[in-house]
Amino acid sequence: MRTQVAIIGSGPSGLLLGQLLTDAGIDNVILERATQDYVLGRIRAGVLEEGMAGMLDEAGAGARMRREGLPHDGFDLTFSARHHRIDLFGLTGKHVIVYGQTEVTRDLMDRRAQTGGVTVYEAANVQPRDFDGAQPYVTYEQDGIEHRLYCDFIAGCDGYHGPSRKAVEGRGLETFERVYPFGWLGIVADVPPVSHELIYSNHPRGFALCSMRSNTRSRYYVQCALDEKVEEWPDERFWDEIRRRLPTETAEKMTTGPSIEKSIAPLRSFVAEPMRFGRLFLVGDAAHIVPPTGAKGLNLAASDVRYLFDGVREHYAEKSDAGIDVYSQRALRRVWKAERFSWWMTNTMHCFPEQGAFGQRIQEAELDYLAGSVAASTSLAENYVGLPY
Amino acid sequence: MRTQVAIIGSGPSGLLLGQLLTDAGIDNVILERATQDYVLGRIRAGVLEEGMAGMLDEAGAGARMRREGLPHDGFDLTFSARHHRIDLFGLTGKHVIVYGQTEVTRDLMDRRAQTGGVTVYEAANVQPRDFDGAQPYVTYEQDGIEHRLYCDFIAGCDGYHGPSRKAVEGRGLETFERVYPFGWLGIVADVPPVSHELIYSNHPRGFALCSMRSNTRSRYYVQCALDEKVEEWPDERFWDEIRRRLPTETAEKMTTGPSIEKSIAPLRSFVAEPMRFGRLFLVGDAAHIVPPTGAKGLNLAASDVRYLFDGVREHYAEKSDAGIDVYSQRALRRVWKAERFSWWMTNTMHCFPEQGAFGQRIQEAELDYLAGSVAASTSLAENYVGLPY
Repeated sequence: MRTQVAIIGSGPSGLLLGQLLTDAGIDNVILERATQDYVLGRIRAGVLEEGMAGMLDEAGAGARMRREGLPHDGFDLTFSARHHRIDLFGLTGKHVIVYGQTEVTRDLMDRRAQTGGVTVYEAANVQPRDFDGAQPYVTYEQDGIEHRLYCDFIAGCDGYHGPSRKAVEGRGLETFERVYPFGWLGIVADVPPVSHELIYSNHPRGFALCSMRSNTRSRYYVQCALDEKVEEWPDERFWDEIRRRLPTETAEKMTTGPSIEKSIAPLRSFVAEPMRFGRLFLVGDAAHIVPPTGAKGLNLAASDVRYLFDGVREHYAEKSDAGIDVYSQRALRRVWKAERFSWWMTNTMHCFPEQGAFGQRIQEAELDYLAGSVAASTSLAENYVGLPY
Repeated sequence: MRTQVAIIGSGPSGLLLGQLLTDAGIDNVILERATQDYVLGRIRAGVLEEGMAGMLDEAGAGARMRREGLPHDGFDLTFSARHHRIDLFGLTGKHVIVYGQTEVTRDLMDRRAQTGGVTVYEAANVQPRDFDGAQPYVTYEQDGIEHRLYCDFIAGCDGYHGPSRKAVEGRGLETFERVYPFGWLGIVADVPPVSHELIYSNHPRGFALCSMRSNTRSRYYVQCALDEKVEEWPDERFWDEIRRRLPTETAEKMTTGPSIEKSIAPLRSFVAEPMRFGRLFLVGDAAHIVPPTGAKGLNLAASDVRYLFDGVREHYAEKSDAGIDVYSQRALRRVWKAERFSWWMTNTMHCFPEQGAFGQRIQEAELDYLAGSVAASTSLAENYVGLPY
C-alpha cells in the first residue's frame, strides 16, 4: 500500500491533520492501534481555543461544535474566599468553546467517513521506518499479517505512549520533564453545572475545578494525593470535599448526583525536542504533555497540526520545503509558551506543602495582584484563549 | 526624655518618617546605634519609584534628587542573544529615578539638621519596652549611662539585624523566608555606564546587571556562588565575566576601570508578620527583605513609612486610630506583592542549575513570551515603577 502521508493515531490531531490533507487533495492513511469505539470512549479535555475551532470549521467538521458547543466569555478564579472573574472576551476580544474532545473526535470521524478517508483500526505493532531516507514506510500487523504502508511523510499523532517518539529515542531526542506531587480526581455527573462559567479554586485544602460538558453534564475535579485510589472516594465524599474548597455561596448552589465516570490522573509537564526527524514528525501528545490546569493539551495538538499541514501543503503545492524545515522550531516555540502557562497556572492554583509557608503567601500575593491588575489579568486571558499561531 | 514618636534607626526609612512627622508638628527622636559617617558609608540600592520620590519632595528633601537624579524611562532585558526593552514610561506613564540610597540618606540628614530634628548617634543597646501598654519607652546607653526615652509610639526602622523585631520574637511573630542558592558580586567603578538605561541579563553563565549611580559612575553585578570570596575576583576577572554574560555588541562598548568598591551579597526573601505589636511598628528591612533583582527594598520601606505616617498623623490630628489599626494589614498587602515581583524577577533572570533543563526552558519561554506580549511587559513595568500605595 502507498500513500502520501501516513498518520499514526486516530485521535483528534491525527484526524484533523488527515482531514485538512484530504480536503487539500493530499492522500493519507490513518493507522490506529485500537478500535473506533475505544477511541471514542476516551474522556479528555473540553475547552477549545478559537484557533482550533477555526481549524475544525476549515476541515468541514465544525457545524455541530458551533451548534452545541458553549462559547465561554470568561471564567472565575476563587481564592481566600474571594472571586475574580477573568473577562476573556473583554480583555482579548476572544472566547473559548466548551465542547468535549470526544465530540470533536466523533465529528472528525464522521467527516472522514463522508469524504472517503481511510483509517485502519486495530493495526498492531505499528512502526515508523526508514524516515531518515527518501522512502519511509510504516509497518503494522493485522490478523497476524505484516503490512507495509509506503509514504512520503509520517505524522506521529500517537500520543505519549505511541511508537513514534520511541522510534527516535537515543537519536538526538532530548526530553524535559516536571512531575507534580499530586493528581486530579475527576468525576462526570449528569447534573447542571454550579455556574455557567468555569471556576478555578485555590484553597488551603487543595485545588478544585468546576467545569462542564454541557448545560446538563458537569465535570468536577479536586486535587488529590498521588497514592489515593478511586475506591476511597465514594460520590458523597467527593461532593463534600469539592464544596469545602469553594466559597460558601457557590458550594450552596451546587447540585450533586451520581457520578457516571470517576478517575485519578497524575499531572505532568513533558517536552521532547526536536519534533522532526527526517520525514517523521511528532505531533501533539507524542511530543509534549501539559498539566490540564490551563486547558492547553488539545489546543496545542491543533497548533502542531496547523504548522505541519501548512508545511506539507507547501511541499506538494509549491514544491517548497520551507514550512517543513521550520516545523519543529515553530511548533516548539508555541509549545514552550503553553508549557510555561500551564506550569504557572498549576503552580499558582494548587497546594504545594513542600513550598512551605513562603510559597503559600507568594501564591496568595500572585492572586491578590492578579485581581487588581488589568495587565496581569490580560496576560492570563491571552494565554487562556490561545496565543496566535 | 520624652517625645511623641521614638524612631529606632537613622537609615532612609527612619529619616523619612522623622521628617514627615517633624513637618506635621509631631515631635520625634531618632536613636541610631552607629555614627553618622558609618550610616553614610553604606552603599545600597539606587532606583527610586515615583511614589518614594514624591515623599522625598513632601519631606522637603527632594531638591538635589530632582537635580542630580537620572530619570529612567525604561530598561533592557537581554537573553538568548536578544534584547527586549521594557518601555516603563510608554507602558505605565511613569518612570523611575536612579539616585543612590546614600544620597537619599544625606539629603534627609541635611534636612533634619535644618529643621532641628534630634538624632542620638552611637546609642548602644537600644531596646523598645512596654509597647503593649499605654506608656512605652526605649532604653539605650551612651557613654556608659542608661537613658530612657518615653514616647507614645515606637517606630522600628532598624533593619533586619536591629532590636525591634527581636523584641517581638516568640510573641506571635510569624516569619516567611526563601534563601537563594547564589549571591551577587557587585562593583562600583568610575567609568561611564555601558548604556544610559539598566540592562538585566539572563545568561547560561549566570545573571548580570549593568546599573549606575551617575553618568560617570557605574554599578555592575554578576551572579556568583555563595562560597566565593571577593579576593578571588580581581577586577580583570570581573570585567571578563560580565562581558561574557552580555550580548557581544554591548560587551564591546563597555568601558572598564579600577573598582572603588567590591562586595558579595547573598539574596534572600524574608517577611515578618504582623508589622505592629501594640505601640511598636516594624518598618522596612526590620520586617521584610527582598532580593535586589526588582529594586524594591528601599521603595518598600518608603511605602511602610507612608502608611505609618498617615496613621500617626490621623491619631494626633483627627483623634482616630483607624490608620494605625490597619497599618500592618495595608503594609503587608503591598509588601507581599513586591515580594512576589522580586521573587519572580529573581527566578526568571538567574541560573538555577537545580531546576534542571526543564526549568531553564521555562525561563526562556517566559522571556520569549514577555518580549512578544504587551500585557506581560505592562505587568512587569507596573511592578517595576511601583504599585499604587
